[in-house]
Formats: sequence, structure tokens, C-alpha cells
Amino acid sequence: MFRSIITALSAAAIMTAAAQTDFKPEEHSTFTTDRPDGRYTSSRAIAHQLMASKPPRLQYKSTFDATQAAEWRKEMSAAMARVMNHPDTATVEKPQLTGTWQRDGYRLERWESYPFAQAVVPFLVLVPDGVSASNPAPAIMCIPGSGQTKELLAGETRVDLDSSETKPTRNAQAYEFVKQGYIAVAVDNPACGEPADLEVISGGGGWDYVTFSRALLELGWNYLGYASYVDQQILNWMRTMPEARRDRIVVSGFSLGTEPLMALGLMNPDIYAFVYNDFLCTTRERALVMTLPDANGRRPWPNDISHLIPEFLVEFDFPDIVAALAPRPVICTEGGLDRDFKTIADAYATSGAPEAFEYHHYAKFVDPADRVPIDTMPAGINRDTFFRLANVDPPRHYFKSEHVLPWLKKILAD
Amino acid sequence: MFRSIITALSAAAIMTAAAQTDFKPEEHSTFTTDRPDGRYTSSRAIAHQLMASKPPRLQYKSTFDATQAAEWRKEMSAAMARVMNHPDTATVEKPQLTGTWQRDGYRLERWESYPFAQAVVPFLVLVPDGVSASNPAPAIMCIPGSGQTKELLAGETRVDLDSSETKPTRNAQAYEFVKQGYIAVAVDNPACGEPADLEVISGGGGWDYVTFSRALLELGWNYLGYASYVDQQILNWMRTMPEARRDRIVVSGFSLGTEPLMALGLMNPDIYAFVYNDFLCTTRERALVMTLPDANGRRPWPNDISHLIPEFLVEFDFPDIVAALAPRPVICTEGGLDRDFKTIADAYATSGAPEAFEYHHYAKFVDPADRVPIDTMPAGINRDTFFRLANVDPPRHYFKSEHVLPWLKKILAD
Repeated sequence: MFRSIITALSAAAIMTAAAQTDFKPEEHSTFTTDRPDGRYTSSRAIAHQLMASKPPRLQYKSTFDATQAAEWRKEMSAAMARVMNHPDTATVEKPQLTGTWQRDGYRLERWESYPFAQAVVPFLVLVPDGVSASNPAPAIMCIPGSGQTKELLAGETRVDLDSSETKPTRNAQAYEFVKQGYIAVAVDNPACGEPADLEVISGGGGWDYVTFSRALLELGWNYLGYASYVDQQILNWMRTMPEARRDRIVVSGFSLGTEPLMALGLMNPDIYAFVYNDFLCTTRERALVMTLPDANGRRPWPNDISHLIPEFLVEFDFPDIVAALAPRPVICTEGGLDRDFKTIADAYATSGAPEAFEYHHYAKFVDPADRVPIDTMPAGINRDTFFRLANVDPPRHYFKSEHVLPWLKKILAD
Repeated sequence: MFRSIITALSAAAIMTAAAQTDFKPEEHSTFTTDRPDGRYTSSRAIAHQLMASKPPRLQYKSTFDATQAAEWRKEMSAAMARVMNHPDTATVEKPQLTGTWQRDGYRLERWESYPFAQAVVPFLVLVPDGVSASNPAPAIMCIPGSGQTKELLAGETRVDLDSSETKPTRNAQAYEFVKQGYIAVAVDNPACGEPADLEVISGGGGWDYVTFSRALLELGWNYLGYASYVDQQILNWMRTMPEARRDRIVVSGFSLGTEPLMALGLMNPDIYAFVYNDFLCTTRERALVMTLPDANGRRPWPNDISHLIPEFLVEFDFPDIVAALAPRPVICTEGGLDRDFKTIADAYATSGAPEAFEYHHYAKFVDPADRVPIDTMPAGINRDTFFRLANVDPPRHYFKSEHVLPWLKKILAD
């Protein structure tokens, strides 16, 4: 229990004794063993082998016929429901409207949902002028990226909407959607923005996703389970909105927001379409190949524990999940490996809707000659190399309205 | 996926706008809400409420009679086996002896166990001179604290035992035991010492328990599950040692090592006795009360994810587990709350073996007048206050041979 004390007291001697001063990380980029029996002594290497030997149970197979694919999608949905582990909703009360503001061409509403007896989760609703129960519109749930808030999505400058101004930045997807005539529902991700703890009032900088996630993990839950549960309650309410077309509910996730999108997508077959605004990658492969240590001999992990969902990666991975959304329309806006897009395209073709899947690479990698033609990520790389090989252009990570808006217009034309 | 980029880009504006320059952590030591309906907006507060509303399923009850207590112990054992989630052992091969060295009064052996097809886990065995199949001795598995190694437990200076010298420090419990005539089996904890990854060869300082734990958690496993599984294979082998008294196998854990001790204890009813060398606390309570934020508004978590065992704390807590070891002898050497010791003493009395439980406070808190007489930890404290209220004297955290050796002599007298 006294980790820091003990480490300081007793590890130093052993480590100093054995330390080399000429450690070269690139010589240890992957796990190796010089034992004749091929066994590893390093616990970290053993855990790596355990993960490597356990591919996801529900990987999409290009050999599926339409019937097998349909059966597989059901299993994917059941597995997602299991790992998301939503609590029963006996204490959930109906969302309440807490305020309305007229903006330029639309009505901005603030609502509160009550996903637990002790909780309030506010969300924003943007309804275009002229949309009503007798003239309903498609409704798009907008889920922000890490560090983003529902106010940012709505193009607002403040949580207090009485004093807020509308000044949309380029990630204001809810604002963009309402301007196109769609209802937009902007949610927060847990532990950020209005649902944050003390970060705003302390002015301490950054949002603490991790401690919140840790508390959930102790209970056998996880960040995405909570996020998708909270979003699910708002989605349930969207289905009851008189102004919304219940048969045209769309979920749009940016970056971190693609994770709840995937969870909701598998668990709610009535969602009509999906905007996946991030690069697409195989998360398990990312963890397995990003093993290049730093100068201190520490190998990285791709992300923090707000992305930890125990048993998620033994069930499926991101490309499998997007493939399982077939035949429902999906747009992926920020590239990835052609290998993964081929998998998803195959699933859409098998489901009889090849045109329902659209994807775009980052501008920098639109020309196939600029993409590294690989089917397997090489082991022993770092984050930068991973991004490069996955055709990712980090500084250009933003909401790709230039792809999304025309696509929505097409799929929501009727 | 681009957490750091996004956070930097888009959170700054909102946070700066709302930041107060006069944040006083002590004014926010607990979770509060000024809403009339008592609901919380903070995700972290909501997670706290979820945890607070979910006491462990298998808490020990002082109302148990002997029959109910026996039934409860079976449930505790089953729950521990479930959360430890040991894999099947089809590929486990028998441990092999890899070297023997004569030391002053005992034989030092190095063994290797093979808990997975890809893995080797070395351990040390110290056999007193004169102990043999025809003159067997009790055998004590020694599990080190965080940052400690099996070599440290054995009083050795190096992993390479050919060049190692015997220079025991005060935490060399295996050395102390063999000097008393007991067989000592010294193991490493995962990810530290010989099972470390690159820490020793890089000389980078510290041991990386966290990345290893993260890999396991992704797979639905956890650090303690792995540690107890690896230790279990060595325990299985100890039962076959000709020189060991199979009816006198003891497990002795120091600090971090008390966690595998508890797991092994519940899952192996044939372990004869336990040395619990740490303070005892209710881990869930610790997480619930340590909510005093730092100057940046961050509330702490008591420990890192090597201590994260999903669903552990919804099943039981440390005092429950020690109580469930009744009627087998246990010594707790470094205090805790009298409340918790009373619980355990009650369980031992109910099992008909009140004398089998012994506990000692830190010297500083031996006088009851020096202990804060509380039954409930106050909310909103930090680590230092928690330690003070739990009667912990961190600088005096070491292997308490002064209590342990006389106690072992007593319980192993026959």
C-alpha cells in the first residue's frame, strides 16, 4: 500500500547495480527472449503474448454469407450490451425542459435528463424554425470529442445560455446540422464540461476523465458503459420528440464521441445512420504494435483508462463494430487503413447495401500513392509512426462538414 | 483519440472564462450539490454516489452463527475465485530446479515455474540444513511488497546467485524464516524484479506495474488475478515438496504481497496460517473518503490500476476477507482501525477459534489513547489524514519480525 515509499527504499539498490548507461530503445522495440525454450521472463511480455494469442471472438469474416452476417450482427449486439452493462432504468425519470432561447433560424433548448436517482445530465436541443410535429425533421445526436462540450457543439460560448453568444467554431457540428434543417441534440461526454467535477471552478486546466473512470471500473463498469447509458436515455427521449422523425434518427460522433456512437449503434437497430468523424483503427493491433520504449525503458499504452473496457477487445474491435452497422448508412471521415475499409465495404456488400458505406481519407492521404500499402502494422513502433502508417494527419483532425453535410443531404433526401 | 490535442485546442476557452483565482480545496472536500432536488451534475460525484450506494454483497455480519459463517466463507471463496479468474492450467508444466547454492545454515535453490506456454516465473527456495523428507519442516511462501524482489526477501544482493552475496536487510522475511528452521519460498510480484520488462537494463528507475496491468485489464483480467495465479502454481508445487510439511503451509505477505495472500487464502482452504504484514483497511471506504481535491481541483484515488480488480469491492473488502480466513491462524502486524479488528475477532470467535487471530498496532499507536476512536472515517480527507486516522505510521512500515517470529513459533509448535 505504500508503493512510493517502498519503491524508493528498496528498488534503488538492485536497479542501480544492474543499470546500463547505454540503453538504446530501438534495440528493444519488440519483446524478445534469448531463452532456447522461447519463454519470456518479463510479465509485460507475457501479458503481450496473452493478448496476441486471443483474437476477438466476433471478428467479421469475409466468408460470411448474408444469413451468417445477420446472425453475426445479433451476436455483436448482444456482446456490446454485455460489456456496456447498462443498469436497469427503474429510477429514470422523464427529461425536463429548463429553458428556451431563440437563435438565428432555430430554437435552442436546454433539457435535463435523470439517468440515476442522484444524477442530472443536461443536454441541448437545436430545432430549426419551421420544424414541428406536423413538419418533422431528422434528428441527429451529436457526441463531442475529448475536451469538447455540448456548448461547443452548439456553437455557444457559455454554459449559462442567457449570457452565451453564438460563435460557432469549426467543430460545432450541432450548429452546422441545425443550419441544414435537421434537429440537433448536443450531449456532453461524462466528466467534461458541465458534468465535470471541480476543473472549471478551480481553473486548474484539463479535465479529469481518469478518476471518474477508475471509480466506475471498480464497480465493474467503465467510462463508455456510463457514457452510452447516459446517451441511451437521451436517445430514448429523442424517439418521443414530436418534431423528430423517429425513422430518421442519426448519431454523429467526433473523436472520443465515436465510441458511444458504436455502442449505441449496435444496441439500437432503429438508429438510421451514423457519422463517424475520426480515423478508424484496430485498437487491439494498436496496443500490440506500440511497444517501442522511451529512454527510460517504458513501453507506452495508446490511451488512458477512460478507454479501458474490460473484455471489449476480446469480443470485437472498431472495424468489426462499424461493419456490424451494415446495412445502415455510415460515413467515416478521417481515414485509416484501406485494409479495414475493405473489411467494412465487404460487410456492406454482403448485407446488400454496398452504397451505404462511404469513407474519406485525410486530404494528405487521398492519393493512394501517399498511403503506405500495408495489411499488418509492424511491431515495435511509437505513436507517431502508428499515426503515419494509419494515414492520420493529427493537426487536421476536425469535424469534416465538407464530407458530412453533402452525405447527410443524400441519405436524408426522402 | 487525440485527447491531448483536443483538450489543448478547445477546452481552454471555456475553462479560462469560468476559472476562479481563489479556489480553496478545503471548501470542496466532499461532493455537494445546491440543487433543490439533491441531484449531482458532476460525473465524478455521480460515480461516487453509485459506489456509496453499493456496499459489498458479502460483508461479514456479526449476527452470523457458526453455520451461517461457514456458508458465508464458501460464498467468499467462490466470489474470490470468480474475480481472480484463473485460466485453466492445461499447458502448465512442472517447475524445474535450475541451481543450488549452500548458504550459512541453509540451501538456496533457484526454481522456474511455467504458468503459461510462453512464460517462465523464477522463484527461490531456502531449505534449512537438516530438513529432509524424513525430517520435514513447515514451508512459508513469502510475497514481497511493491518494489521488492524475491532476492531482497532472501537477503541476496543479486539476481545472479553465483555472484550474489547474502546481506539481509530488515525486510528479508524469507531469510528470517529459514534461520528459524522453516522452509521459505520467495516469489516475485509480477512486473518487478526479474519479471520486470526493461526497467533494469534501462536504468530508468521505478517499476512499471501499470502498463502490464492495463494489458491484463483489457483482457478482462487484472494484476492480482495474474499474481495469485502465478503464486498458485508455486503453491501447488510446494504441496509436492518432499521436505515440506503439507499440513503446515503458511503464506506471508508484505504490503502489496498481502493482496495475493488474501486471494490464495480464500481459494486454498489447506493453507495453514497467514502473516499479514501491512496495516488493514477498508479499501472501499478509503476510496470514498479520500475526496479532498488538490490545488488544481483534482480529487485523488488511493492507488494505481495495479490495484484495480473490477467487481472486487462490490463483493467484499479486506477486513471481510481476513475474517473469512477463520478459523485458520492470522497475524496482522501493522494496525488499522479497531473497528475492523473487532469484526475479524468476532468472526474468529464465531468460528470457535478466538485465539487464532492476533493483531498488533504500530508502536506509535499501541496505547489506545493515541488512537482516534472512530467507527466511520470522515469524508473529505487526504492520504495523510487517512493514514493518521487508520493508525498508520508510514516511515515504520517494515517486516515486523519481532511480532511474526514468536507468533510462528507458537502456532507451528507441534
